[in-house]
Amino acid sequence: MSSEQAGRTVDGILPTVGSPQDLRSLSLDELTMLSAEIRDFLVAKVSRTGGHLGPNLGVVELTLAMHRVFDSPRDKFVFDTGHQAYVHKIVTGRQDGFDALRQRGGLTGYPSQAESEHDLVENCHASTALSYADGLAKGFSIRGEDRHVVAVVGDGALTGGMCWEALNNIAATKNPLVVVVNDNGRSYAPTIGGLADHLASLRLNPGYEKVLDLVRDSLERTPLVGRPLFEALHAVKKGIKDAVAPQALFEDLGIKYVGPVDGHDQAALESALLKAKRFGKPVIVHAVTHKGFGYQPAIDDEADKLHSPGAFDPLTGKMLAAPSLKWTSVFADELVEIAAERPDIVGITAAMPESTGIDRLAAKFPDRAFDVGIAEQHATTSAAGLALAGLHPVVAVYATFLNRAFDQVLLDVALHRLPVTFVLDRAGITGPDGPSHYGIWDMSVFGVVPGLRIAAPRDAATLREELREAVAISDGPTIVRFPTGSVPAALPALRRIGPVDVLAEGIRKDVLLVGIGSFAPLGVQIAAMLAERGIEVTVVDPRWVRPVPVELVALAREHRLVITLEDGVRQGGVGDAISKLLRDHEVDVPLRDLGVETEWIGHGTRNEILTQIGLTAPVITDRITSWYSAVAGLDAKV
Amino acid sequence: MSSEQAGRTVDGILPTVGSPQDLRSLSLDELTMLSAEIRDFLVAKVSRTGGHLGPNLGVVELTLAMHRVFDSPRDKFVFDTGHQAYVHKIVTGRQDGFDALRQRGGLTGYPSQAESEHDLVENCHASTALSYADGLAKGFSIRGEDRHVVAVVGDGALTGGMCWEALNNIAATKNPLVVVVNDNGRSYAPTIGGLADHLASLRLNPGYEKVLDLVRDSLERTPLVGRPLFEALHAVKKGIKDAVAPQALFEDLGIKYVGPVDGHDQAALESALLKAKRFGKPVIVHAVTHKGFGYQPAIDDEADKLHSPGAFDPLTGKMLAAPSLKWTSVFADELVEIAAERPDIVGITAAMPESTGIDRLAAKFPDRAFDVGIAEQHATTSAAGLALAGLHPVVAVYATFLNRAFDQVLLDVALHRLPVTFVLDRAGITGPDGPSHYGIWDMSVFGVVPGLRIAAPRDAATLREELREAVAISDGPTIVRFPTGSVPAALPALRRIGPVDVLAEGIRKDVLLVGIGSFAPLGVQIAAMLAERGIEVTVVDPRWVRPVPVELVALAREHRLVITLEDGVRQGGVGDAISKLLRDHEVDVPLRDLGVETEWIGHGTRNEILTQIGLTAPVITDRITSWYSAVAGLDAKV
Repeated sequence: MSSEQAGRTVDGILPTVGSPQDLRSLSLDELTMLSAEIRDFLVAKVSRTGGHLGPNLGVVELTLAMHRVFDSPRDKFVFDTGHQAYVHKIVTGRQDGFDALRQRGGLTGYPSQAESEHDLVENCHASTALSYADGLAKGFSIRGEDRHVVAVVGDGALTGGMCWEALNNIAATKNPLVVVVNDNGRSYAPTIGGLADHLASLRLNPGYEKVLDLVRDSLERTPLVGRPLFEALHAVKKGIKDAVAPQALFEDLGIKYVGPVDGHDQAALESALLKAKRFGKPVIVHAVTHKGFGYQPAIDDEADKLHSPGAFDPLTGKMLAAPSLKWTSVFADELVEIAAERPDIVGITAAMPESTGIDRLAAKFPDRAFDVGIAEQHATTSAAGLALAGLHPVVAVYATFLNRAFDQVLLDVALHRLPVTFVLDRAGITGPDGPSHYGIWDMSVFGVVPGLRIAAPRDAATLREELREAVAISDGPTIVRFPTGSVPAALPALRRIGPVDVLAEGIRKDVLLVGIGSFAPLGVQIAAMLAERGIEVTVVDPRWVRPVPVELVALAREHRLVITLEDGVRQGGVGDAISKLLRDHEVDVPLRDLGVETEWIGHGTRNEILTQIGLTAPVITDRITSWYSAVAGLDAKV
Repeated sequence: MSSEQAGRTVDGILPTVGSPQDLRSLSLDELTMLSAEIRDFLVAKVSRTGGHLGPNLGVVELTLAMHRVFDSPRDKFVFDTGHQAYVHKIVTGRQDGFDALRQRGGLTGYPSQAESEHDLVENCHASTALSYADGLAKGFSIRGEDRHVVAVVGDGALTGGMCWEALNNIAATKNPLVVVVNDNGRSYAPTIGGLADHLASLRLNPGYEKVLDLVRDSLERTPLVGRPLFEALHAVKKGIKDAVAPQALFEDLGIKYVGPVDGHDQAALESALLKAKRFGKPVIVHAVTHKGFGYQPAIDDEADKLHSPGAFDPLTGKMLAAPSLKWTSVFADELVEIAAERPDIVGITAAMPESTGIDRLAAKFPDRAFDVGIAEQHATTSAAGLALAGLHPVVAVYATFLNRAFDQVLLDVALHRLPVTFVLDRAGITGPDGPSHYGIWDMSVFGVVPGLRIAAPRDAATLREELREAVAISDGPTIVRFPTGSVPAALPALRRIGPVDVLAEGIRKDVLLVGIGSFAPLGVQIAAMLAERGIEVTVVDPRWVRPVPVELVALAREHRLVITLEDGVRQGGVGDAISKLLRDHEVDVPLRDLGVETEWIGHGTRNEILTQIGLTAPVITDRITSWYSAVAGLDAKV
């Protein structure tokens, strides 16, 4: 202990915290110092690696309080959208890992069972924590285990329907389950809707106790007051509470509410959590926090409080990487141009106006852009409603998040043949955020939807072109999907056959290489390498990949081997669809499809991941060489 | 007019109602008579065709009131889970269609744009109506059109998260949008959870005005009462309202609440709707109805109030069809047996305990069966939580409804490699309920989930066997999927190769026919027909279709043509997966896959639909004959 205490003097308290137990003996003053140290640590580390900064600066005191009041890993913590778990990682023995945060082989940016027994839920999609918590609490109850479950959920995530489903179920139980509402008034952007207003009304209230006292005093001073008034006031006791601090929304569901509590007041937080813990049944603790707390550049960042910056200057908060033209930006500007021409165009975002570029539409046409909260299902079906009213909605979301609304795309939009365009940003392999952010499932999953057309542009020009083609389609839904990051150099077509762009041709027609979207340039690169080996390749970009263009049949017939190359899962992907198209035309030219296997991939940069899974020019060139040799050899034998 | 009035005398009022306009001139007494006539009509028609009876008996007065207060089709009605739209169909000119209700070519069981300009939303999945309504209202506002939008949603559907997402957004608007909560205390089964309790508390309350009067009287009789009390009471006025009729849940979101109103009191309903219409901004009208109202056998049916019976005796409500052994029943009984052996087995249903068979588990082990409401997302993620707590949950849902939880299956369950078994009832072509009830997407959509295994049993014995295999798997999720209706005759295997059952063999190995699940018997039938034409077929059932058994590679190599036959969409289906497996092993034996195309199919019986889309033994036999001849001819030329 003396060496630890010496350590505190020299290096501060943080180095002495190796596990939650080390927090127990700290005084309030020491905890305040520790909080400051943790914030410095976060800024220093994340400024080098990039990562989720704003959310973690906001939950320092909360996380310390949770670890002091509850007993992890015996008690279970579930962090909704796990990017708010950095502080939790810091106090559970993983400080050293932050130098390689979100890098391949390094610490993940989310909870990870492989990293720590204190971690549980690795999915970073929002609004799931309360459902997990309900299941955990029911499970422990069935098994007769006396454990507490604590779910931490943001006010933004509460706009997601899953939270409502979970609260409705939690209310029907008697399990020891604490829901901490981490209310910072924001999701990525400020939280919207009726719930946000309700939480604001809770936040602004000083508590109902004072008013109750006032009423009690008055009654004591008026002894003549009749029995009916007593009865009425007895009946309205809960009503008074609602009027002054209207927690009714939760309490009407039957869940006890504690709060609001200042989320940066260590003592108040611990007192509230202790009260909740002792209650032993479902409780909501409403903690008001400030995203970016304690770091001025984050506080000053109105747009997203340095939610998840890349590497930045720790003194100023300014990004280090030079800005380059992003896919998002090309889309956002083109959408504004189209909207200026067509008054029926409206935009929808699910709590990500900046990240998806809908903010630019909103700036120009504020009445024609809607932020629906973290609510992809509602985004989709309200788009169906807008289309039924005669508009053409453009729903801009990350590819991974539209998975949430598969059923709504299928039945609410496509079954009704409604003209809704879904713009899927961050499609394909993404990178540092790990598996739950990959956008590799869209072409397979949405590929089964009747009447849905999917476009995969390869550069800025085709993105603009295909977006315009998509919003011109009036008899059903469309998807336009593009990857994360910067747009590559322009890759113009040699010629166009139907919708299919021919990008490269050889002397002979040995191999037809179908390069999908962002992989089309890779296809051209591979064709050049194969040409050096004497294999002549035609490279085409079908541009539209659902349905796959029938023009590919004739093209395939002319070649001896067909290769498909896509930035998505092979299972049910474009390769499968082209294979089926050929089968249906009884064209049995051998086909080999390249894409992502049905397996989980870790985090790393996009290029690291592509290398890891073998989707690079040299590896693919070798594979095609081998396949082509076999096919050509087989023919020779015949 | 006089002939119509004569008509009323002779045949009643119903025959004179050809459009909503005809309702306008009716007196309250005439409306009461009409309601009775409509109920007789519903019982008479549905007893012959089968269909949704209970829900429609409950909304007779409500539908009449809507059509009298609002102006459809100018104003838009959105019926959540459109099966409550029969009365709406009756008063919008479609009485004659009820003789062929839900039959091929006849009236659909849901709203249908093709049938009437009064219909809008055809999807019958629950909890979507408020999102549609929000979009419609926003769209009309942008277009400057002065129309009202009325959404009718059941209390059961309100347990679905989409409703919460929608209410949160509706609250932020000022559009003329009326949400009618059709509160009958049930979804299919009684509604569960905190919301149900809240609605019950609203229902039981006589209104707050009386208590307010009481307080006011008391204050008048106590002139000495101080200013603080006045102020406090002024502040708590809303609070009093909440305590006596706690509508705060909706009003805290910022949506006006009207109710509760007796849903079978025509005058009260019309008055409430008129009030809501005049308000001109979002309003919730809480109508308390009784499922099955006015028909004693429905009222007496505690389980589901004759929710959706087949043909029945109109006098007694008893079903006409002889009971046969259903797939659901085989599953339900086996699950109870397994649960008796394994205390870690728990069951989850999303508001359909009877229809999925979870009621039998609940009867035997009440603490180990959970009804989560119409909330497939929560069903899935709370199952993940239960699995994290050491249990093995079995989530029983209709195949079509698990689409709602694709993202949760992918990330909340599979990414964490959790042992959750999903039992998909009504998989494949279903029938009379039309496209939104088809269970034809599961094998494709869930086929992309890493680590997920899918079993497709062919008869009762393999269902029992594969269910046991599924719950024995502890390192990831499983799906067991089976069709609607009765189990077919037992079809024992000749032998087993790995997991693959060989069901029939010929003398030569001409064709390998892979029959999936319920189509395995069809495969055997086809093989017999092909044998008569001199084509020898090996029929196998892989039993597990994700991943597809590698044993199929060697089998395929021995044959000259591979045929796959599945009760699901071809795109991304088992045929595609086997095609890919063969490609990956560089086995280029021609393969032809048979299944459902990517297109919308109408309603009809399962057999009618299968005939319509060419999935019958004679048609398939002809196609295979043609394909085999081409393949054999090609070989002959070589």
